[in-house]
Order: sequence, then C-alpha cells, then structure tokens
Amino acid sequence: MEDTPAPTGDFAPAFILVEPQLGDNVGAAARAMLNCGLTDLRVVRPRDGWTQVKAKARAMASGADAVLDGARVCDTLAEATCDLQVIYATTGRRRDMVKHEVTPSAAAAEIRRSAAVGERCGVLFGRERIGLTNDEVVIADAILTVPLNPAFRSLNLGQAVLLIGWEWHRAGDETPPRQRIEADSRRATREEVFNFFDHLETALDAGGYFKVEAMRPANVRTIRNLFTRAELTDQEVRVLHGIVTALVGRSRNQL
Amino acid sequence: MEDTPAPTGDFAPAFILVEPQLGDNVGAAARAMLNCGLTDLRVVRPRDGWTQVKAKARAMASGADAVLDGARVCDTLAEATCDLQVIYATTGRRRDMVKHEVTPSAAAAEIRRSAAVGERCGVLFGRERIGLTNDEVVIADAILTVPLNPAFRSLNLGQAVLLIGWEWHRAGDETPPRQRIEADSRRATREEVFNFFDHLETALDAGGYFKVEAMRPANVRTIRNLFTRAELTDQEVRVLHGIVTALVGRSRNQL
Repeated sequence: MEDTPAPTGDFAPAFILVEPQLGDNVGAAARAMLNCGLTDLRVVRPRDGWTQVKAKARAMASGADAVLDGARVCDTLAEATCDLQVIYATTGRRRDMVKHEVTPSAAAAEIRRSAAVGERCGVLFGRERIGLTNDEVVIADAILTVPLNPAFRSLNLGQAVLLIGWEWHRAGDETPPRQRIEADSRRATREEVFNFFDHLETALDAGGYFKVEAMRPANVRTIRNLFTRAELTDQEVRVLHGIVTALVGRSRNQL
Repeated sequence: MEDTPAPTGDFAPAFILVEPQLGDNVGAAARAMLNCGLTDLRVVRPRDGWTQVKAKARAMASGADAVLDGARVCDTLAEATCDLQVIYATTGRRRDMVKHEVTPSAAAAEIRRSAAVGERCGVLFGRERIGLTNDEVVIADAILTVPLNPAFRSLNLGQAVLLIGWEWHRAGDETPPRQRIEADSRRATREEVFNFFDHLETALDAGGYFKVEAMRPANVRTIRNLFTRAELTDQEVRVLHGIVTALVGRSRNQL
C-alpha cells in the first residue's frame, strides 16, 4: 500500500480500470469521465504498459488529456483501492456469489450520500471482453450492473464508463427538466397578442370566414387557443400581423 | 413523402441520423440503440452513400446488424420524419431560437407518455462536429440537450445515441434499485445464526476476551450486529464455525 492520495474535489468517485487492453478504450473512458465531471482515473496494469496505452488513449480522449495525465497507474488492485471506503464492481454477467446488485442510478445516489458523509468511493471496470475476475468482484461492496436489453447487453469499456459517469453526474445536475430558451426575444404581452387577434378576426370577417354565425365563438376559441399555446414572442406577433396583411392584400389583388 | 412505415413494436422512438459522415459512428449508434432495445433507425443522406457506410458500420455494430439492415435511408429529413408526431432535436449548443429545451430524462418520460396515447416520436441526431442546422432544429417540438460538464460537453455520435437511448430504456426498466443476488445458497435461519453466536461467544469467554464484565453486553452486541448485517448464508455460517474451531485449536496448540 502506498501513501493515501489527496482526496479529489468533492469526493467524486474514482474510476478504476483493471488491466485495460486497448489505448482507444482508455481514451474513450477518460473523455467520458471528463464529460461527466470526473477526473480521478486509476489504471491497474495496462496490458501494453502505460506509456504506450496513454499515447494511443490521447488520440481518443479528444482533449481529456488532464484526466490521462493525472491517472494513477498501479501494480495491484489493492494499491488502486487502498484509500477507498466504498467500492462498486461493474459486471455484465451474474457471478456465483451472494452479493447486492445495484442499478447505475441507485449506485449514483448511494455514492453521493457516501460522499456527503466524507466517504471515498470507487467503481471498478474490468478488462475488455472478460471483465473482472471473481477475486476482484469479491472485494466490492456491491455489483453494479446496467440493466440493458437482455438480448444485447454488451457495452464497450468507454460506453460503460459513460453510462455510470452520466448517472453520477445527472444525480447532481439541477438543469430544469423542461425550460423555454428565450434567445434574444421576449414573450409578447397580452395586449400585443389581443391586437393580433383583432387584426386576424377582422380580416377573417371581411373574407367571409365565419360562414355559420353560431359556430363563430367556437372557431374563435380554436384560433385563439392555437396561437396562445405557441407562447408567441413580440417579434412573432409582428410576423403574424405581416402575414395577415400580405394575405389580405393578395386576396384583394386576386379579386 | 413516401408511404407511412409500419409502427415499431410499442411505439419506441425512431432515431434519425442526419448526414452522418463516418460508418464507425453509425455502427456505434446501431449498437447503442439495440443495447437500449431500440430498432427504428433512419439515416438521411449518409455522406459516403449507404452501401459504403453500412459496410463500415457493421464492423462497429458488434452484432447489431438487424438494426443496420432494417434502417430506412432517406433523401430528405421530411421523408424521414413524415410519419412522426413528436420530434426532438439533439443539440450541444444553444441556438438563436425560442424553443423548449428538455433533459434526456424529461424527453424519455415525455416520449413514453406520447407513446402511451399512440403518438409516434423521433429524435434527430446531427452530423459529426457541426450537428444539426437551424433549419433542421426548427422542425422539432423541442431541443434535447445532455447537461454534461459545461467545460467539456462534446459527445461523439455513438455516445449521444447511447445516453438518449439509455434514458428511454431506463424509464421503462423495472430492475430493483438494489437487490441481493442469492447464487445457489440461501439466507441462514436465525437458529443457525444464534448457534454460531453461542459457539463464538463461548470460545471468546474461554479465551478471556471479555476482560471487563461490565462491557460484555456492549461487546456482544457489536459482534452480533456485525455478523447480522452481513446477512449470512447457511454456507457462510458453516465457514464461520470452521474458522472459530480452527482458531481455538491453534491457540491451544500455541499454549
């Protein structure tokens, strides 16, 4: 065991790649980590040696060099996990082992609760194709499995890192589920909207649109509701005035 | 506009790749879709022609050939979306456009609600690097943006498809957040556990473990709680009996 490393920012989890084989995948993993605001990468015995793996990884990392440069390269899993208190092992297949299995979102919530009380967490990712050995899985507190399409659940390393990282990131993300982007415009005032209704309905009257007087209130409500639901901007109200004017002019010309 | 295609299974959303440039990315997208149980892939004007793109995609698709083989290749975005009623446009950057923006999880929930009332939904994915044009975004009901690390938010096409697909899949997934996997064993009965407590505490008594009699109840509770929290199996109880027996034997030999 080496010295305990300094804790990362707000106790974001460490991602530990065990014996990764391809530099491309390490690069994709580093990129996915940084996408999700994660930087504590640890690599246990990269197959082709760290210098070579890192060089190939850099090409795939699309600028996540800081994650690669800051990676801790370890000879053993014990060394890579010595400072951690809570460990999850990602696996794609069931093991003959009595253990708790959690979904990515459950793991994300648990990791954030652990971090809130100062516990350091880590997630283990196995080798391409064969994953983690049972000896490695057994030291984890729980198994983390992504419940994908049972008929087609194989993820590559970079994608697995992305999904687990994303779940951690989104658990702390406060983006409104649905919001209106305003660009440079503003919502029209109701006065502007009512003026447009007047313009439109007067023009429709002149054009003989309201054929059955009894249906007029229902027709007006349909039209007003459609334009109200569009949540018009002031600029769009001006565009609509222009459209009505153009159509009225055209119909006059046609007469 | 062509004939309306047959609806997919349970109105799962269509994923529409607009002018993808690299076959690798199309293959990764097909794989990610199938991982998430999605099969309705549509491709608008693949840059190098569909035959060539599909050949390259197949190598990256890791067996998701059915998605590639079933893909609908279209000349225009209008053709690719003609049967859809609800459309989301994925974008990584803000547009100068007044529009609702939703998170992946909000979009997933909305798509499932739409599907439940029989509406067909689709998600647009733009070209590598430059994404969708404003003319393409404008025909979508809402913008779908993945709220990643603001300092490093670029996703490649395959990863974007995976994240959006995953959110759709997980919204319908009923995997328990945390469950205990039993393998071939069963939880020990309390009688088995109590017998072990008796064995252990008797051995500890004989070994002089309880030095301060007043502390004995607290010590016993600590030990019993630790082993109770482990949720032992019948096999593990037998292992623990064996451990106590072996340790007692060893200490006798040392005397």
